[in-house]
Amino acid sequence: MQQILDASKTSDWRALDPANTLYMDLPKGRVVIELAPSYAPLHAANIRTLAHEHYWDSLAILRVQDNFVTQWGDPQAETDHPTHKKSIGSAKATLPAEFEREIDRTLPFTDLPDGDVYAPQVGFSDGFPVARDPKTGKTWLTHCYGMVGAGRDNAPDSGPGTELYVVIGEAPRQLDRNIAVVGRVVQGMEYLSALSRGTGALGFYTKASQRTPILRVRLVSDLPLAQRTKLEVLRTDTSTFNALIESRRNRNDTWYLHKAGRIDLCNVPLPVHTH
Amino acid sequence: MQQILDASKTSDWRALDPANTLYMDLPKGRVVIELAPSYAPLHAANIRTLAHEHYWDSLAILRVQDNFVTQWGDPQAETDHPTHKKSIGSAKATLPAEFEREIDRTLPFTDLPDGDVYAPQVGFSDGFPVARDPKTGKTWLTHCYGMVGAGRDNAPDSGPGTELYVVIGEAPRQLDRNIAVVGRVVQGMEYLSALSRGTGALGFYTKASQRTPILRVRLVSDLPLAQRTKLEVLRTDTSTFNALIESRRNRNDTWYLHKAGRIDLCNVPLPVHTH
Repeated sequence: MQQILDASKTSDWRALDPANTLYMDLPKGRVVIELAPSYAPLHAANIRTLAHEHYWDSLAILRVQDNFVTQWGDPQAETDHPTHKKSIGSAKATLPAEFEREIDRTLPFTDLPDGDVYAPQVGFSDGFPVARDPKTGKTWLTHCYGMVGAGRDNAPDSGPGTELYVVIGEAPRQLDRNIAVVGRVVQGMEYLSALSRGTGALGFYTKASQRTPILRVRLVSDLPLAQRTKLEVLRTDTSTFNALIESRRNRNDTWYLHKAGRIDLCNVPLPVHTH
Repeated sequence: MQQILDASKTSDWRALDPANTLYMDLPKGRVVIELAPSYAPLHAANIRTLAHEHYWDSLAILRVQDNFVTQWGDPQAETDHPTHKKSIGSAKATLPAEFEREIDRTLPFTDLPDGDVYAPQVGFSDGFPVARDPKTGKTWLTHCYGMVGAGRDNAPDSGPGTELYVVIGEAPRQLDRNIAVVGRVVQGMEYLSALSRGTGALGFYTKASQRTPILRVRLVSDLPLAQRTKLEVLRTDTSTFNALIESRRNRNDTWYLHKAGRIDLCNVPLPVHTH
């Protein structure tokens, strides 16, 4: 895989869009999240507003459930004192469900022909793992490791993006089409995946002191150029990406005695580098 | 799922076999590992010998690679001073590859008919996730979250069980049939999955001080009864287990607007309780 990346061309990569990238600073390091406005435009817009108005600053990681998700937001809203929750400023408190969208020919799609347990068709769209159902004409972002979603209560419109989660275990694909996936972590997953698991129900921390504080979340376009990390992601509509998939599907190094011949959607790496 | 477990019968559960169960004590808590002698008999025997002779006591967690594995063993053998490695006592230094075995009608198998990207047939055998290929007549343990394997070098016989790893991310099914899977963590995964990721190549720690020490590993049958935890695992050849799978395949709670209709082998929970 490294050989393929080393041989890649400049045009195989695209820079992250500063207007759709977040930096979340935790005590141990920075998490970089890319939003997916093509799949969840209203959520991406609301999250941009929340970040622009510094909503998450001084909030916390609320929940870490082993082999499932790490979730963050306002401790007051979730568990402590709902009446004292932080103002969401000019962001919206509810949003229409953006759990799937129409398949659109303008939307990039690189087919992964290896099959999938959960969906009739899977592949990649502009760097994100996606599934599609040709019968219903719908497509949706899939819950792979590192994907970020907007937590919700029972009402479909109750997840405006104030409380976000990231997948830290085996892909919980049963969540697909039930909740708005809003993006993915492109760097710094280890700051979210290696946190102590909460001992309460669903992995919630039982004491405020157990929560990891969020120092700040910033929309990159709000930052001066000097404070931005120049990250690029491998384009998923390139022959380099297809070569990378093949190198992972059938490993060439001598260690492998048996080549898998197939690869699961959520096992395909989505490379990131600094340029 | 909890309703189904609450309604389960005593006979739906089986006690862990003390002769094939390990306690690994780390500073933050205990990890319980069940060996799979039906699939890796020589490895299980060697690991029993190593535990019986206290091989892992004062060794360490060597490697934590995000979304892949946590691995433990002798720091001297792996990185520091190969010539100073700890004696493996009466255990064997090499073992024949136990990467797959013949399908045997005496071996329990509960089919999971939901399909699989990597294997023609998958299911459960005595509490372990497995795959089978009717054409070759072979079956093997699969690399799901929490499964434990015996690290090896390039030689197929070079993984005698001294260095073990556990899956802490998306199931790396490309490893199936390439390495001996020897069992699974039945309790205490959070003590292996929430460790700081190593910053060296392959997630190895770069400094000795970063490694988590292993206090001790014991074979449960070597311990007096009073020191044993009475753990039981749900039998996978029961109607209760099938009901549990169905409850996860098609979630009944009102939160789910879209039922998946399918479930991946590695998303099926394998319940454990104290009796």
